[in-house]
Amino acid sequence: MKATIKNIAQECNLSKTAVSLVLNGRPNRISEESKLLIRETAKKLNYSPNQIAVGLVKGRTRTIGLILSDISNLFLAEIAKIIEEEVKKYSYTVIFGNTGDDGHRELEYIEEFLGKNVDGIILLHSSDTSDDEEHRIADVIQKSDIPIVMLDNDLEGLEIARCILDNKEGSYMAMTHLLKLGHRRIGSLLGPMAQCSVRDRLSGYKQALADWGIPFEEELLYQGNFTISSGVAAMPYFMEKNVDAIFSYNDMMAYGLYTYAREHNIKIGVEVSIIGYDDCFINNLLEVPLTSIKQPRVQMAKKATECLIAMIKSGKKDAQTILFHPELEIRKSTSVLTC
Amino acid sequence: MKATIKNIAQECNLSKTAVSLVLNGRPNRISEESKLLIRETAKKLNYSPNQIAVGLVKGRTRTIGLILSDISNLFLAEIAKIIEEEVKKYSYTVIFGNTGDDGHRELEYIEEFLGKNVDGIILLHSSDTSDDEEHRIADVIQKSDIPIVMLDNDLEGLEIARCILDNKEGSYMAMTHLLKLGHRRIGSLLGPMAQCSVRDRLSGYKQALADWGIPFEEELLYQGNFTISSGVAAMPYFMEKNVDAIFSYNDMMAYGLYTYAREHNIKIGVEVSIIGYDDCFINNLLEVPLTSIKQPRVQMAKKATECLIAMIKSGKKDAQTILFHPELEIRKSTSVLTC
Repeated sequence: MKATIKNIAQECNLSKTAVSLVLNGRPNRISEESKLLIRETAKKLNYSPNQIAVGLVKGRTRTIGLILSDISNLFLAEIAKIIEEEVKKYSYTVIFGNTGDDGHRELEYIEEFLGKNVDGIILLHSSDTSDDEEHRIADVIQKSDIPIVMLDNDLEGLEIARCILDNKEGSYMAMTHLLKLGHRRIGSLLGPMAQCSVRDRLSGYKQALADWGIPFEEELLYQGNFTISSGVAAMPYFMEKNVDAIFSYNDMMAYGLYTYAREHNIKIGVEVSIIGYDDCFINNLLEVPLTSIKQPRVQMAKKATECLIAMIKSGKKDAQTILFHPELEIRKSTSVLTC
Repeated sequence: MKATIKNIAQECNLSKTAVSLVLNGRPNRISEESKLLIRETAKKLNYSPNQIAVGLVKGRTRTIGLILSDISNLFLAEIAKIIEEEVKKYSYTVIFGNTGDDGHRELEYIEEFLGKNVDGIILLHSSDTSDDEEHRIADVIQKSDIPIVMLDNDLEGLEIARCILDNKEGSYMAMTHLLKLGHRRIGSLLGPMAQCSVRDRLSGYKQALADWGIPFEEELLYQGNFTISSGVAAMPYFMEKNVDAIFSYNDMMAYGLYTYAREHNIKIGVEVSIIGYDDCFINNLLEVPLTSIKQPRVQMAKKATECLIAMIKSGKKDAQTILFHPELEIRKSTSVLTC
């Protein structure tokens, strides 16, 4: 049995109103002695305020919901950590939902978090989402009473605040780097095409080829899903296609390419150049340090948090799009074409 | 404004009871036609059941709270992912809380999750916890109405279900490996001493030295905090102490040792052997693949979930301790002492 305000009031021989005022930190004229008694009694009886009831009354739970696709993806784990540290500064806590990149579960989490009365949501949209799910997600977001900020991956056509990267720019940057090194047969290890960010990266890939007068070849695309195992599967495909470089749409898949290469004695940075995307912390420590497109994750996560908190405070929804720009981190996995 | 059962009932021209029965999936004799109308109307009005109210009535929210110290730690992120996948099999969702290894926030998350009426909690106890916080956490856990399973790091003296590793065994295994390679001056890169698992690892370190007749030297201990940056800081200390091997109490700190070594041209596996703890997926892809003590994380996470779900279903608390055993994964970061 959980202790209630009533139990505490009885135990202290004080009114329920007095107990409630003190425990909810509301203005009151109760003596310091009584306050102390109430707090001590609440502690003794293991009183835990019904946060939700408090939330329903105050409209504030000081909790932010964070929804992302894969917590074991280094990039996303780092984003999650930064957001967690940021909201802490505003005395908020975060509850996380991991969708496994599944649109259905994303929808469930949004509804669950709304049901649990969080004050706001930061959403890193999942990619494996049917058109129907996408419409339902858009619908729930649009009708939501609480502010939602989209981060990293976009969901087009929504009137919503978003912090996103110029993904076409990042991809064009990666390709220009490879092309300048002399590479011409460049494999493109795609992420899920349902993601805007992936489509933008593909668009940058094609644009760079066009600007360099190199014909686009469909067979140099491989459909990955942002996991290490899809990188492992892609490597023999690309080797068979005689690519001299691979542009991987995230670092996790590049680690998969590395895994296959290690097992088959393929020399990265010599026989094949590899460039990743995200610039995870471990890249510098790999056998062949991984060249990667750096997303300014700290700034992006901070801005998303700031934007959400501002909306919570003002009670007004804001639909601005904040665009971030990537940087190229050159390491040893990319080198001049030798053969 | 959120739609309520009442709004839907009015819109459909049906009773609130009928709407409630259908939307909550309770047995009823309502026509298929009316059911369809109710569901369509609920969808149209963007009705989201108040999950908490549902939870309060049914005593079930089908949500598990998972509390851990650092989501950007690869080992913990993998654990989180496995638990998430496991509970999904039972149609549960997980909400995560990241404590930043701070006991105060751990306590806040436990209370918040209890307030949000989760059905159970899996707790990876934080290390930076004062005695007072530890007592309060123990108290809340002991008095909780819902089942809680401790995973990975233990909180001693509690009547609670736990899935933990034999950490002394793992540490003894790591040390025996280094000693057999001829190493005698072995640095010990500690995690936070407030953690049982860390104290057990130190105990294994000392036991191995004693069994090999090597005197224990206080100066070969370095106090880390399980982050990469504490590994970076430890490396010059150990070099100055002329160690020939380092036993790092987790892999993340070992990556810090690697980072410093790369910047200062120290050859790992040649000039100094390094062994980690956790065996994260990336170890095999590092410049010098990292030897590590493997925790059977999949089995541990699965068992913790299974145990929690069983308690939720039975409504009975169970205080069994399930002990797991580590394995040694030998790679190139440890080698025979040459000088």
